[in-house]
Amino acid sequence: MARALALAAHGLYTTTPNPRVGCVIVRDDGCIVGEGWHVKAGEPHAEVHALRMAGEAARGATAYVTLEPCSHFGRMPPCCEALVAAGVRRVVAAMQDPNPLVAGRGLARLREAGINVSSGVLEAEALRLNEGFISRMTRGRPWLRIKAAASLDGRTALANGESQWITGEAARADAHHWRARSCVILTGIGTVLTDRPRLTVRGIDTPRQPLRVIVDSQLRTPLDAAVLADGNALIATALTDTAGFAPYEARGVAVLSLPGEAGQVDLPALMQAMGARGINEVLTEAGARLNGALIASGCADALLLYLAPSLLGSAARGLFDLGLLESLTQRHALRVDSVDTVGTDLRLQARFATA
Amino acid sequence: MARALALAAHGLYTTTPNPRVGCVIVRDDGCIVGEGWHVKAGEPHAEVHALRMAGEAARGATAYVTLEPCSHFGRMPPCCEALVAAGVRRVVAAMQDPNPLVAGRGLARLREAGINVSSGVLEAEALRLNEGFISRMTRGRPWLRIKAAASLDGRTALANGESQWITGEAARADAHHWRARSCVILTGIGTVLTDRPRLTVRGIDTPRQPLRVIVDSQLRTPLDAAVLADGNALIATALTDTAGFAPYEARGVAVLSLPGEAGQVDLPALMQAMGARGINEVLTEAGARLNGALIASGCADALLLYLAPSLLGSAARGLFDLGLLESLTQRHALRVDSVDTVGTDLRLQARFATA
Repeated sequence: MARALALAAHGLYTTTPNPRVGCVIVRDDGCIVGEGWHVKAGEPHAEVHALRMAGEAARGATAYVTLEPCSHFGRMPPCCEALVAAGVRRVVAAMQDPNPLVAGRGLARLREAGINVSSGVLEAEALRLNEGFISRMTRGRPWLRIKAAASLDGRTALANGESQWITGEAARADAHHWRARSCVILTGIGTVLTDRPRLTVRGIDTPRQPLRVIVDSQLRTPLDAAVLADGNALIATALTDTAGFAPYEARGVAVLSLPGEAGQVDLPALMQAMGARGINEVLTEAGARLNGALIASGCADALLLYLAPSLLGSAARGLFDLGLLESLTQRHALRVDSVDTVGTDLRLQARFATA
Repeated sequence: MARALALAAHGLYTTTPNPRVGCVIVRDDGCIVGEGWHVKAGEPHAEVHALRMAGEAARGATAYVTLEPCSHFGRMPPCCEALVAAGVRRVVAAMQDPNPLVAGRGLARLREAGINVSSGVLEAEALRLNEGFISRMTRGRPWLRIKAAASLDGRTALANGESQWITGEAARADAHHWRARSCVILTGIGTVLTDRPRLTVRGIDTPRQPLRVIVDSQLRTPLDAAVLADGNALIATALTDTAGFAPYEARGVAVLSLPGEAGQVDLPALMQAMGARGINEVLTEAGARLNGALIASGCADALLLYLAPSLLGSAARGLFDLGLLESLTQRHALRVDSVDTVGTDLRLQARFATA
């Protein structure tokens, strides 16, 4: 199963909106006779690749799959039928299908066909590989990861705005891997106007650039903004008068009207809208205001925090605008998953207690 | 030598103002015949304990010592003479005496007596064990470690001052070990007035309570402050009129007049004054102002930062007041030594690039 998970991870940058899935077919004598992973939506599933490689050797063998095989006709015929047809004797799944409406159906279909079935092997690892897909299936919204970089005392920029670069080159290169695996890079109009970022994946061999989503309540994004250059962008605005949308749409940039409270964009509605578009993972690269609003509104699931070994002092800019807390019971709690060294910086991964 | 270092660490809370030293005597066949560590100033050195245990077996054996044996008559006869008299054939030291005026004399004395001598084995570990003693010997001032606790976004308290408790019980218990190994707990008048701390070691079996040093430019420490209760305290003030010192001195609390710029206490002068008093390690538990001033004046050597897995937001209080930096080149750089989990919190150890 560990091998199947490693294979599944080959699809980290490419399977969206599908999940990352790997499959290994093992003969009774322990010899691997087939393996494969899902590469891209519209192309064969992991099981199909593995069965093709195994050919006749699949008969009587065990198939390890990182996700319950599908039982429905989508763009591909169901993998369950393929496993049955190939004469596989046993199927071990890491986890069930996260969609509560179909979970267990694939395994049931296999059992009906007389196949020995079990599930839950290395389940935690399998869940982690597809947090975005699982979030969309179970909550109708993507998994949202906030990326931020700060000094050890939690400062992102000097009071005068100088911020390039707080963290080192290795941390900035590492961040591109997180962009590459994300379906959307989410940012705010403040970052667009101040930093003029492109928010593209650079320095990594990937066939896909993530969709850039800009939270821009008053529709102030310049038409020549770098982030709009390739037209692979979407603007969420609080404006309801669609008259101003046309110039963006003419450049291939969709504009969504999602009015929320106090003239702001309705962020939970934006999350649902992204989910409806098949978005699994969102990486947020924004300023203290949008990041704070995402946290305060419960939209943030995880934090990817690069900490540089330096101090900027209390006059410098903070990480997250969360308003004025009146009691420590209002703090936003997280669980730390890992702390790693990236170059001379630290990379901290945590998830919000609500996630 | 690893064994000798572990023995030396037994003296972590007790040897001050002396260094922590361990000694192991090993026969040619690899058998340990004697070991010891320095327990307390005025009592025998590590070598003497080890030689006593070894007795006649020390003849022809190798002595591993974590610090160059002394060659001068202090409160104890020199260890070099004892090693020579015992007939030790070889001496391996982890490091030379850090005092530049005497470094190498002990080893030279041993060589003159025909003993095979080497030095530098596990030197980095030996240096780390006695950073305070080494700092005092080489710079005339103690090693200063700033302890602080904050949320992941670098906040120590809510805007309304609520701060108990940001970190968990395990982190707070861990902090007492750092108090116990320190000769001085340094704090500011703001913390004394606001938090009314005792700053004593609790929950640890130690024969010694560190001296509490209060930076109090205007001498506002209440005579009934908890931190003065045991009289084991010193106040550094910027006042030069000694008339107000008497009530403190009557309680056994020394008052030092160290006027600096702008009515503040001269912090580098305080460091030298502590060094002159035989203070090796200082643990600072103070607010953002004193901590910031210590960092800005180059007095801070290390940072012991507990990070709780929570966010408090930019309206909450920051860690260090460092004034308004105008360029990122003015940031205070550190090197991270370690990040550990303590309960549900992180404990980060770093040292300032200037240290």
